[in-house]
Amino acid sequence: MNTFGQYFKVSIFGESHGPAIGVVLDGVPENIPLSEADFDADIARRAPGAIGTTPRREADRPKILSGVLDGYTTGAPLTIVFWNSNVQSQDYEQFASIPRPGHADFTANIKYNFANDPRGGGHFSGRLTLPIVAAGVVAKKILNADYGTEEAPQKLDVKISARLLEIGGERDASRWNELLKAVSDEGDSLGGIVECTATGLGVGIGDPFWDSVESCLAHAIFAIPGVRGIEFGDGFEAARMKGSQHNDPFGPEGPVKNGAGGINGGLTNGAPIVFRVAFKPTSSIAKPQKTWDFENKRQTTLQIKGRHDACFALRTPVVVEAMTAIVLADLL
Amino acid sequence: MNTFGQYFKVSIFGESHGPAIGVVLDGVPENIPLSEADFDADIARRAPGAIGTTPRREADRPKILSGVLDGYTTGAPLTIVFWNSNVQSQDYEQFASIPRPGHADFTANIKYNFANDPRGGGHFSGRLTLPIVAAGVVAKKILNADYGTEEAPQKLDVKISARLLEIGGERDASRWNELLKAVSDEGDSLGGIVECTATGLGVGIGDPFWDSVESCLAHAIFAIPGVRGIEFGDGFEAARMKGSQHNDPFGPEGPVKNGAGGINGGLTNGAPIVFRVAFKPTSSIAKPQKTWDFENKRQTTLQIKGRHDACFALRTPVVVEAMTAIVLADLL
Amino acid sequence: MNTFGQYFKVSIFGESHGPAIGVVLDGVPENIPLSEADFDADIARRAPGAIGTTPRREADRPKILSGVLDGYTTGAPLTIVFWNSNVQSQDYEQFASIPRPGHADFTANIKYNFANDPRGGGHFSGRLTLPIVAAGVVAKKILNADYGTEEAPQKLDVKISARLLEIGGERDASRWNELLKAVSDEGDSLGGIVECTATGLGVGIGDPFWDSVESCLAHAIFAIPGVRGIEFGDGFEAARMKGSQHNDPFGPEGPVKNGAGGINGGLTNGAPIVFRVAFKPTSSIAKPQKTWDFENKRQTTLQIKGRHDACFALRTPVVVEAMTAIVLADLL
Amino acid sequence: MNTFGQYFKVSIFGESHGPAIGVVLDGVPENIPLSEADFDADIARRAPGAIGTTPRREADRPKILSGVLDGYTTGAPLTIVFWNSNVQSQDYEQFASIPRPGHADFTANIKYNFANDPRGGGHFSGRLTLPIVAAGVVAKKILNADYGTEEAPQKLDVKISARLLEIGGERDASRWNELLKAVSDEGDSLGGIVECTATGLGVGIGDPFWDSVESCLAHAIFAIPGVRGIEFGDGFEAARMKGSQHNDPFGPEGPVKNGAGGINGGLTNGAPIVFRVAFKPTSSIAKPQKTWDFENKRQTTLQIKGRHDACFALRTPVVVEAMTAIVLADLL
Repeated sequence: MNTFGQYFKVSIFGESHGPAIGVVLDGVPENIPLSEADFDADIARRAPGAIGTTPRREADRPKILSGVLDGYTTGAPLTIVFWNSNVQSQDYEQFASIPRPGHADFTANIKYNFANDPRGGGHFSGRLTLPIVAAGVVAKKILNADYGTEEAPQKLDVKISARLLEIGGERDASRWNELLKAVSDEGDSLGGIVECTATGLGVGIGDPFWDSVESCLAHAIFAIPGVRGIEFGDGFEAARMKGSQHNDPFGPEGPVKNGAGGINGGLTNGAPIVFRVAFKPTSSIAKPQKTWDFENKRQTTLQIKGRHDACFALRTPVVVEAMTAIVLADLL
Repeated sequence: MNTFGQYFKVSIFGESHGPAIGVVLDGVPENIPLSEADFDADIARRAPGAIGTTPRREADRPKILSGVLDGYTTGAPLTIVFWNSNVQSQDYEQFASIPRPGHADFTANIKYNFANDPRGGGHFSGRLTLPIVAAGVVAKKILNADYGTEEAPQKLDVKISARLLEIGGERDASRWNELLKAVSDEGDSLGGIVECTATGLGVGIGDPFWDSVESCLAHAIFAIPGVRGIEFGDGFEAARMKGSQHNDPFGPEGPVKNGAGGINGGLTNGAPIVFRVAFKPTSSIAKPQKTWDFENKRQTTLQIKGRHDACFALRTPVVVEAMTAIVLADLL
Repeated sequence: MNTFGQYFKVSIFGESHGPAIGVVLDGVPENIPLSEADFDADIARRAPGAIGTTPRREADRPKILSGVLDGYTTGAPLTIVFWNSNVQSQDYEQFASIPRPGHADFTANIKYNFANDPRGGGHFSGRLTLPIVAAGVVAKKILNADYGTEEAPQKLDVKISARLLEIGGERDASRWNELLKAVSDEGDSLGGIVECTATGLGVGIGDPFWDSVESCLAHAIFAIPGVRGIEFGDGFEAARMKGSQHNDPFGPEGPVKNGAGGINGGLTNGAPIVFRVAFKPTSSIAKPQKTWDFENKRQTTLQIKGRHDACFALRTPVVVEAMTAIVLADLL
Repeated sequence: MNTFGQYFKVSIFGESHGPAIGVVLDGVPENIPLSEADFDADIARRAPGAIGTTPRREADRPKILSGVLDGYTTGAPLTIVFWNSNVQSQDYEQFASIPRPGHADFTANIKYNFANDPRGGGHFSGRLTLPIVAAGVVAKKILNADYGTEEAPQKLDVKISARLLEIGGERDASRWNELLKAVSDEGDSLGGIVECTATGLGVGIGDPFWDSVESCLAHAIFAIPGVRGIEFGDGFEAARMKGSQHNDPFGPEGPVKNGAGGINGGLTNGAPIVFRVAFKPTSSIAKPQKTWDFENKRQTTLQIKGRHDACFALRTPVVVEAMTAIVLADLL
């Protein structure tokens, strides 16, 4: 289904080439200041136009349809819509019979009998990360809101920060532009790894077992198109350590190293949550690729036109941040 | 909450040192043959007693309380109970104030005000993987059941297989006994990586976005105690590949390599689902460890008594298999 | 929360005096023909303007934002929006401190600290039944859609029909206009009873116990503002019958009378579902009413301005129909 | 599915003629005192043996399997089991082909292909109200528990009370024994109406729209076998009143009459919640009844053996109370 969360519920809708995409947020507390300008910074971080990204430039201005009155949330469902302004559906129709390697064309066509809006990937489009980013803006506000009464004021102070850790295996960011240019010239693409940190959660957020913090974060993160893996704390390296190396000793404030990534037994342990997300290289590449022509039943060579992201992982830190905020706003 | 799934719902209950643990399964189709003996093989795979594991030997015989009549499921909720026979609660009480590194003692005590059954880790115990294994047995039967009518017989034929891929970074299984013995002699422990494959799912299982196959599998896998990471297909390596290397070209039967691990756009693509799970080294080790004594407010050295698993990942392939079956039975 | 249903999920949003109200529908099958004109007839049945109703006339034209392509549903979430054109917020502000008898002013103000959009009742407004009617139009199409393959065509043929059974205790509809005029002249209002029938469901729809057909229908029906009771089949009268009178004997086609209202053990029994819904009289009346002035802490007399429905139950049969369709589309 | 609730989750399991029935409760706070003896009083109120009820006497002793330690709840899932001791399956087999009027035999057999445990009605059995009563005992404890800190102690003080209002249309309780004896002698049965009141909830419990208090209560109440209707406050009578009669004026403490049954706009308004539930007459009667023999395809006369409740509504007040407590524990 199209909804995530139990207490902070996020429902996205829209196709990348229909009239609009958007999101309904349920469970937003009242009295949080919110205006349409609050979304600008994060939308810019996700926006096309950065080095090595596609030139498509949408207006991407949010319109709040409900849930906000005179600059404050009302507690009622909050709806944000983005109108689609740059609809070029003809580009996509060929992929119904000649699926692009790495895309959902093949699986979507079989599942939905070719009926599911072939234009722009329909509900599979990366454009749906735009309402996610918008939901993340609201979630981050919730995670920093003032609660409690005048006598006993209380303030959440959760900070979430995601950044690109490596591109194409390279961690030295000063070399990235060169790498991106080279791969772009080849008509090829690169993947990347994003690292995300969340602080200020205190001890005991999460539920043991089914709704462990890792379970909930991984669930949401794998909804982002192009994710191939997630690891917490020492991650896959932990499987190659000894217990005496990986275990986090306790100090007076809680665990003193962070091999567990801030989570024990599915609950936050007071240390920062730390996890890394592996993004595949952009699937759409200029380089000719072998694929199958299902209509004519023969192998064919596909060359995808237009310019494409050399590394779409560049746009994803803000999406990872948004997803993390959505999950934590639901768990708190 | 304590329940997983929408269509095939799994609710576990019980503490490792209370009278019993068990599971209620909702959404089991009727007329599937099922007896208590059907659980023996998988329970044995998880059972203590293997090389390098703890000597605790429970009876671990399932008792079916509801949902089965004359050897067939009835379609009503199916309840399986395991009585706890070997309760030694006194071992665990000290950990309320002196938390074991790597365990949930610290987080659980703060979250539940020390009230939550300190004996045996309460609802955090690895023993809860026993009802999961039982649920997996039922789920695997559902995934291979006969459906359809006499005229149009239909049979699901999903096969799930998980195996240990490496221990302590070593992939050569012939060297594992030696490694386990050495680490056991040191009073230390090793982690491991489990690889799981699922075939026979066809194209289109899963939902785009929130309930992608990866999302649902990762959610369930991270509920298993001790998981540090999960990756699908090329996994973290994909982030270091070029698009032309990672993309799966299509052939007449679907994708012809499997860098995506059998999933595109969140839906199965007909190729086998392949993923790997990183398990941390066993947290309980004989070696003395530094930790904090919260009662006396000073650093202390903790030595955990008794014999413990040198590598609890040895027991986990059947649990990963069970979780995978539970998720797929819910998605189908 | 703001969502109903598991398989056919209805999420409403919007305040009566914000920019728009609307609904997101999840679980709509693909390939169902749907255009904006399809909503006209049912919207007209709910519309203001009928005898004894408020004169407020909204455009009430639906705009489909997602989920429909070239006149057919795509299977992706379907979003329908209604822009609010006639916003007169100043009328409502006084009710924050002087609550109108029968309205949610009092409870909403306490629950939401006066923050929750006092204009037009916020999320409590009867205007939210407009997106419900729109959702009902889609649900009724699902309940009459063609399914199955070309070889084995299958068509659902569920018919739902709700009508006003009585107004102010009067079942003779020819006397209603006279009653409405009289009560309107007094500045007072009347209640009414709606009867709803659903046929074509076959045997076995529903789940035993928690999600009995009655449970699901009653849940949705009590979400309609102003409902005071619901009864199935013989209803409250059944409590005054003997078993030999109330029991439905079986014939070759199933039950031959319909005291159970088409449901046994929570499942449809093949006979039409029949239930009745009691609507209170319109709460807003012109007649002066005693109430409490919470600001000045004294009794006061409130006279609500403007013309109001003499019997809002007149508008509700289409809403009851919509709710019934929503529930049945979710259960099927 | 077999589960009710979001925060206080109730999952029942078991067949009346299998080894056991029971319930898993999720969301029970820790530190609530609870012992097996606490269930005795309510179980006795539901128990067979009262005037005009079936003579079947089960042990009906609850066994707590998990979630309680040393007499206090632990916060982990709480499981309560009742062993079935008096299994007489042979009585019920005939009803697969000759369905009893008023029972679920017909619908269950078609839905579950005769596979669903014909003995005792399987999952449709009234015996499942026994774990509901047990869940209600826990819910009532939650609704009266001490919360808050030592500095700011807080205590819930919700009181729920249900009683039989009328039997066979008779409100004078002194005449009931006579009525029951007469109808019993005829081999017939009577229905009844239960009234339930809940106080101490304060203002604002519930959610506007989908999860109105009425919606949630009605959902749960219609899960009780044999319910034909529910009405709140003035109920069906409201539909025959004028607005000026039905509206509740406000006084300094809130509404001063209770035509709305304690709920406005789906939220509690501070006045007691009051509702009435109509129970059909017992379906199993000694009197011969016409029904259909589906095996031999002819009308037949069925005479149900054994003694049956003359009015099973006598046992239901405690069940209505339990359901009300379950719903309110979930909403609070």
